[in-house]
Amino acid sequence: MIWYGGDYNPEQWPEEVWAEDTRLMQEAGVTMVSLGIFSWAMLEPREGEFEFGWLDRVMDGLHAAGVRVDLATATASPPPWLTHRYPEVLPVTKDGVRLSAGSRQQYCPSSPVYRRLAARLASRIAERYADHPALAMWHINNEYGCHVSHCYCETSADAFRAWLKARYGTVDALNTAWGTAFWSQRYSEFAEVQPPRAMPSFGNPGQLLDFDRFSSDQLIELYRAEAAIARAATPSIPVTTNFMGFFKGADYWAWAQEVDVVSDDSYPDPADPLSPMYAAMTRDLMRSLRHGKPWILMEQAPSAVNWRARNAPKAPGEMAAWSKQAVARGADGILFFQWRQSVAGAEKFHSGMLPHAGTDTRMWREITELGADLADLADVEGSRVDARVAIVFEWDSWRSLEQQAVPTRLSYVDHVFAWYSALFERNVLTDFVKADSDLSGYDTVIVPSLFCATSAALDNLSAYADGGGHLVVTFQTGIVDESMHITSGGYLGSLQAALGVRIEEFAPLAPPDLQKAGVGTPPTVALAGEFAGTGALWSEHVRVSDAAVLSVFASGALEGGAAITRRANAWYVATLPEGTLTGEVLDVVLASAGVATDPAGTVERVQRGRHHFSIDHGTQAVQVEVR
Amino acid sequence: MIWYGGDYNPEQWPEEVWAEDTRLMQEAGVTMVSLGIFSWAMLEPREGEFEFGWLDRVMDGLHAAGVRVDLATATASPPPWLTHRYPEVLPVTKDGVRLSAGSRQQYCPSSPVYRRLAARLASRIAERYADHPALAMWHINNEYGCHVSHCYCETSADAFRAWLKARYGTVDALNTAWGTAFWSQRYSEFAEVQPPRAMPSFGNPGQLLDFDRFSSDQLIELYRAEAAIARAATPSIPVTTNFMGFFKGADYWAWAQEVDVVSDDSYPDPADPLSPMYAAMTRDLMRSLRHGKPWILMEQAPSAVNWRARNAPKAPGEMAAWSKQAVARGADGILFFQWRQSVAGAEKFHSGMLPHAGTDTRMWREITELGADLADLADVEGSRVDARVAIVFEWDSWRSLEQQAVPTRLSYVDHVFAWYSALFERNVLTDFVKADSDLSGYDTVIVPSLFCATSAALDNLSAYADGGGHLVVTFQTGIVDESMHITSGGYLGSLQAALGVRIEEFAPLAPPDLQKAGVGTPPTVALAGEFAGTGALWSEHVRVSDAAVLSVFASGALEGGAAITRRANAWYVATLPEGTLTGEVLDVVLASAGVATDPAGTVERVQRGRHHFSIDHGTQAVQVEVR
Amino acid sequence: MIWYGGDYNPEQWPEEVWAEDTRLMQEAGVTMVSLGIFSWAMLEPREGEFEFGWLDRVMDGLHAAGVRVDLATATASPPPWLTHRYPEVLPVTKDGVRLSAGSRQQYCPSSPVYRRLAARLASRIAERYADHPALAMWHINNEYGCHVSHCYCETSADAFRAWLKARYGTVDALNTAWGTAFWSQRYSEFAEVQPPRAMPSFGNPGQLLDFDRFSSDQLIELYRAEAAIARAATPSIPVTTNFMGFFKGADYWAWAQEVDVVSDDSYPDPADPLSPMYAAMTRDLMRSLRHGKPWILMEQAPSAVNWRARNAPKAPGEMAAWSKQAVARGADGILFFQWRQSVAGAEKFHSGMLPHAGTDTRMWREITELGADLADLADVEGSRVDARVAIVFEWDSWRSLEQQAVPTRLSYVDHVFAWYSALFERNVLTDFVKADSDLSGYDTVIVPSLFCATSAALDNLSAYADGGGHLVVTFQTGIVDESMHITSGGYLGSLQAALGVRIEEFAPLAPPDLQKAGVGTPPTVALAGEFAGTGALWSEHVRVSDAAVLSVFASGALEGGAAITRRANAWYVATLPEGTLTGEVLDVVLASAGVATDPAGTVERVQRGRHHFSIDHGTQAVQVEVR
Repeated sequence: MIWYGGDYNPEQWPEEVWAEDTRLMQEAGVTMVSLGIFSWAMLEPREGEFEFGWLDRVMDGLHAAGVRVDLATATASPPPWLTHRYPEVLPVTKDGVRLSAGSRQQYCPSSPVYRRLAARLASRIAERYADHPALAMWHINNEYGCHVSHCYCETSADAFRAWLKARYGTVDALNTAWGTAFWSQRYSEFAEVQPPRAMPSFGNPGQLLDFDRFSSDQLIELYRAEAAIARAATPSIPVTTNFMGFFKGADYWAWAQEVDVVSDDSYPDPADPLSPMYAAMTRDLMRSLRHGKPWILMEQAPSAVNWRARNAPKAPGEMAAWSKQAVARGADGILFFQWRQSVAGAEKFHSGMLPHAGTDTRMWREITELGADLADLADVEGSRVDARVAIVFEWDSWRSLEQQAVPTRLSYVDHVFAWYSALFERNVLTDFVKADSDLSGYDTVIVPSLFCATSAALDNLSAYADGGGHLVVTFQTGIVDESMHITSGGYLGSLQAALGVRIEEFAPLAPPDLQKAGVGTPPTVALAGEFAGTGALWSEHVRVSDAAVLSVFASGALEGGAAITRRANAWYVATLPEGTLTGEVLDVVLASAGVATDPAGTVERVQRGRHHFSIDHGTQAVQVEVR
Repeated sequence: MIWYGGDYNPEQWPEEVWAEDTRLMQEAGVTMVSLGIFSWAMLEPREGEFEFGWLDRVMDGLHAAGVRVDLATATASPPPWLTHRYPEVLPVTKDGVRLSAGSRQQYCPSSPVYRRLAARLASRIAERYADHPALAMWHINNEYGCHVSHCYCETSADAFRAWLKARYGTVDALNTAWGTAFWSQRYSEFAEVQPPRAMPSFGNPGQLLDFDRFSSDQLIELYRAEAAIARAATPSIPVTTNFMGFFKGADYWAWAQEVDVVSDDSYPDPADPLSPMYAAMTRDLMRSLRHGKPWILMEQAPSAVNWRARNAPKAPGEMAAWSKQAVARGADGILFFQWRQSVAGAEKFHSGMLPHAGTDTRMWREITELGADLADLADVEGSRVDARVAIVFEWDSWRSLEQQAVPTRLSYVDHVFAWYSALFERNVLTDFVKADSDLSGYDTVIVPSLFCATSAALDNLSAYADGGGHLVVTFQTGIVDESMHITSGGYLGSLQAALGVRIEEFAPLAPPDLQKAGVGTPPTVALAGEFAGTGALWSEHVRVSDAAVLSVFASGALEGGAAITRRANAWYVATLPEGTLTGEVLDVVLASAGVATDPAGTVERVQRGRHHFSIDHGTQAVQVEVR
Repeated sequence: MIWYGGDYNPEQWPEEVWAEDTRLMQEAGVTMVSLGIFSWAMLEPREGEFEFGWLDRVMDGLHAAGVRVDLATATASPPPWLTHRYPEVLPVTKDGVRLSAGSRQQYCPSSPVYRRLAARLASRIAERYADHPALAMWHINNEYGCHVSHCYCETSADAFRAWLKARYGTVDALNTAWGTAFWSQRYSEFAEVQPPRAMPSFGNPGQLLDFDRFSSDQLIELYRAEAAIARAATPSIPVTTNFMGFFKGADYWAWAQEVDVVSDDSYPDPADPLSPMYAAMTRDLMRSLRHGKPWILMEQAPSAVNWRARNAPKAPGEMAAWSKQAVARGADGILFFQWRQSVAGAEKFHSGMLPHAGTDTRMWREITELGADLADLADVEGSRVDARVAIVFEWDSWRSLEQQAVPTRLSYVDHVFAWYSALFERNVLTDFVKADSDLSGYDTVIVPSLFCATSAALDNLSAYADGGGHLVVTFQTGIVDESMHITSGGYLGSLQAALGVRIEEFAPLAPPDLQKAGVGTPPTVALAGEFAGTGALWSEHVRVSDAAVLSVFASGALEGGAAITRRANAWYVATLPEGTLTGEVLDVVLASAGVATDPAGTVERVQRGRHHFSIDHGTQAVQVEVR
């Protein structure tokens, strides 16, 4: 069975509405709701005083209606009494502003007070509902770090120092790792170390990267504490927390190993024609986090959201298309935020399965149709998809590539997406992997801007190529190691041998928005040779020792220098080939690797288990061949 | 008589200049000056020590010259000693920054210290000059809220809680009004409530709207205290404070009921060709605030201002044209900031009636000519203008429509202006009204985006249409009630019946600046039918139950859906018709209502009492027919 | 001899690398390195505990290799222990944010603690190395004010008050100077005065200008204290600190009189085609600061920097061209940041003389070639260049013209550059001068927007013109005096007579980025007459009393009014002539003055002493005639 449903916030409504809710849930085919996510203030209206009666009645009513519950630990947003009594829980920005209550998630992730009170609440809920027959899953907190992933308060500073002490042992080791010999930054003791608050100039790169890692770890630690409580109460009930796709604030590779099932919140912009591709990329990441294990689409909007500057609705059929895309790419559950559209509060203009306008609406008809369709797809549950291509994706490269004081301003995810979208347009299913993982199951591995890499990771990629794997490495890979030191032995490290090149000097191209109007270096460079056209974002001085030069830079100071090279099954790409050119490179790579391609047009095709999914994202009728 | 003059700040000049001032005032036809606005530090140089001698001499000199005085309470800007001794008076921003002295208006509107010291100063001035023969009017403070309309300090927080307690009585009532059941925001006691300081995500909409109302009320309260002092001293002298046109920070509907005469500061940008229309709109608002009673143009610039990034001068004749526009639209006084252009301080590059370059200047010649012209127009004083069309304009809709977390980013005043300007281009004089006011005097009422409306207001509009009034309602009207809850019974509330439509779902169009270059949904939608062309800003799914469909959306996902409808004398417009199309709709409405139109070209025509004003805003000579 | 070398930071490397460093320095022709700039934390690892052993060994090694040392006082960046123990040293922003350690330069320039500890360190270094044979120059601190030129903490506030007291003597004098009679700003005592922190509206112009002056003076005071220590230890060793070209934060005219040799850090953007001209302008400023005395290019990048959003490399030959430009324009030393490219820390992506990629690189080859070339040029040392044209450039005009609440937003340096570049394109060598200096040595003096000028300065310029000097004065000159009061006697002051014009009213033109798309006044104005074309940035109402009108405004409200005038040898230019028009005006002026011009094309020509330099900045081969 594919789970179907959404966030359910009955405390927003008078109790007499609840019966209508369950009746309509049945009508729509709802099988699961996420319950209690923002209920802390209702469950514990005063410190230590708990009121579970209303939740008991909701749970019982859902059970009676055959709807299962993904029950929240309710810790996502502390009530006003908490931060009023313990203002030190409120998080502090880089500039020293202590954020106020009034919205949500106003807590420092390192706060012992928050941790203590959250754990108590989670325990009380876990105890009370451990044996409730409606309970199907634990939903720990909600979108950890969505608004506050980094806190700079004194509590956080202490926690950061403790984390550093655990990581480095001695302050000398920290000094070495961070390269504090420069700019007079050498620390005498851990007590001198601060979070990277507002400062006169560029922060120490090691400090910045470690603070990102620390902040991610603090969130995972919060999760781990509550998950342990849930597991202790109900060893057999799966535990999840909802991820947020490509979210920079937390390393989902690490985190996913701690959940029983990955779940994701996904809100592509219906006004952006690239959204189907971008959504597919997040689905593939979610599936990959647990190495192919089915996952749950925990939240999506039935139509418009409320938090963009302009909130476009989904076109007719778009909600179903994006939902089925998720199933095709490994989801065993399709849920929404939220069941019934709010009439008050900050999210009342976020669409709901049951909209303001009621059941005589396009929205409700599409919701009930999708419920029925998913019921028909029940046997897809648990089946797998098979990807022969993988893209290396890592949080440390994301964090470090997008620091300031680097060669140029690049977006890591945009660069990954450039390669992903060319694969999507060929209907080549793609996994995401870490660079140091076992790559033997893949015919082709793409490595876009793996800026920060351990020597072990570079060795692993080299070994993959040497062993016959088809490897595509792009610019800005292997530039720094895990301590943000320049890669020992030169950029690319051991990949220099595998690729037959070394990099002498960078020549970043200007993103269009950095160009002065009418003057300055053009933002692209001409490419000539086997792959002719233009390159964007980057160029560099490539020294070729043992590779075929497929394309050269054909303009600018690097004219005649290698732009795309090949050594056996290993390609190096020193720019972003524009337009269809990335795809042309891929066609050669995939053909050599024996990976089949299937031009997509507007129709996405995915095979999952015995099911073939064909999903048309265009606005014109198309004929789809059933295979 | 039409008052003529300007702000007079003699303390900037050595006393020997004052005689020249009065002589030149007489030459220019000046009849009134505003005096003492920024004189606190000169009148009370140390706490409790007052020095009135210099002001006595100025008052006497003006009286001797036959110039009347609009005397300020001098409380607009506290002196350095005040905030040095009482730093808690300094206002605090949303981010917690306590603003410093050094410019002006550096006080928290809720500060008891400021209120106490301001009241004392106002009392001393009122007592001293109550019987002075030059005194003609009281000028309370100055441009209340211009720089600091919202303060987030602890004093303000206390005052906000008191205001909320007075409004809601119980914290339960506040919880219901604000919808705190969502996002775990339920308050246990008023002490937990905070101003909407910087917070992790969107603030509670009720909290935001109430803080806007509270902040407006605090300013009015300041005014009320000083006005009472003035009235107690001089029951027959009129009291005013200078408004600032379309100023979001204070509800001028409420405030205007507390002044004896409305006065306004008006600074349209001479570099903007739309300024004449925009200026006319503010004049019409000022006249409407007291239901047609004459008002005073208290400040305008003789030529350039000093506070824009680029400060263009007024072209020859422009100052006179805009001044006469104000008279035509109900002003009984034309004053400037300021009499003599400063040679020091922050406003020295703001033009003056007497410019740096002296009297052998275009500026001085135009000033003296205008003085003479206004003297000739003396009998216009007190006469009224007659408007048969009204536009609904309300502060709560402004505040709420422009919150974050709404369907799209819209400018309320820009939308109002789109309809106003089409009326202006037809020389149709227009009042502004509140939605719950008596509309029976108008043939046509336009309702642009009345986002926030009570059910009583919606009923009043419905009754107007049902009673034969011509009503034009646009998108985003009647969306939320006064507590920011979705309108009970559906968007538009009782207007659904009057208009014969209901709204199923919104489909906002992107403002051009939200479009990604070259991709994404276009920002406009095609319209077909009786009114064919394009619509901007908005589209939506309109369900028509009992209305004629005049135009349909002709592109996009809503293709074929109703865009403009009519039921008897009630029109619904679900987009912003672009170009001349708004005017074409109006032509049909006004013809049906029997309201005459007169294409403006560049010539604005207004009748006030027995006077016909024809004002040419173009740069080419035109022939004006005298009627 | 021309000094050749760069910043040397051996503490970043294990000691075994040092021998390779000196060997390669010899290979490259390095004769001088700047040492110890960021070594505080290494030299004084705990308060009062000094470790000089490592530095002794570096000094000795350099001496053995024949490399001289520009030794730093090492005070540029306080170590973590310092700000941890004395957090009050940390600077505070205008918004009250106390900046954190973690980058560099985190100290309040007025901090007594910083000053005490910095002086002690400088003393210890000066004593220890006073007699070291490698010592050739003292390098005081580093890029003073680069990140923190203005501090708003309480310590700074106290120092500001003391500075004001010294400047004005009485608070009445301050009140008069600042024009505090307006906006109720009159101070009762110095204790009430604050730095211009965040405030509700525009700060007092006098306060803003004095705070700029104070902040500059604090930096110079820091320098002076350390320079005195160095001079006391080694009376014959020259003392410098590295300037930063056109740096608004410190008045280099004043500062330069306190250094023995001017030195400059210069980082033009290789991606900007205007960089050669802009670089030339900074070289000319550096030479002018000490009236033609040779100076040192203390820092430039061998190729890319690391701190722009996009860091372009220098094209082959560009580094040498820009270096020789500096020599041609008076430099007696060419140094780089830094010797060996870092592998860790915030500047690891800043290019180095010895790059990551080692010695088999274009970079290393160009570095060694330049070393050899400069050795061949040894006899240029000490020789002078002769300029017959000067541009007036002053910090007070820069500071005041770019305040808010002025007629329009203008960039002072951009306006200066517009005139400089037209001179550069004619290969006319240009000095910079102060307005009140002796101008008798120049045939032509250009005065772009000398917004703030004393009457003595205006008189000096008038006398220059009256004495037969060729004087070009542009708009926004002589607008305010040194107290930011409007110039007594009218804009331009005594220049009115010299130029035969007075200014009645300003009419600023919109910079393109201030225009609304498609509407509003165009940003340029047509010019007709002897110089026909278009004018940008500015127009105004010029009243001509005694001058020939060469060009008139030919569009807009000023049509027919004078735009460019000439009275004998004095020109007034009331706009910025666009395109080649500035040059056409200059051609007439220079011809009249008898100054030879030489169209540059892409080839810059400069004569220094007996050397003729021809430097091609183009990308095509050109034939250069040797003269």
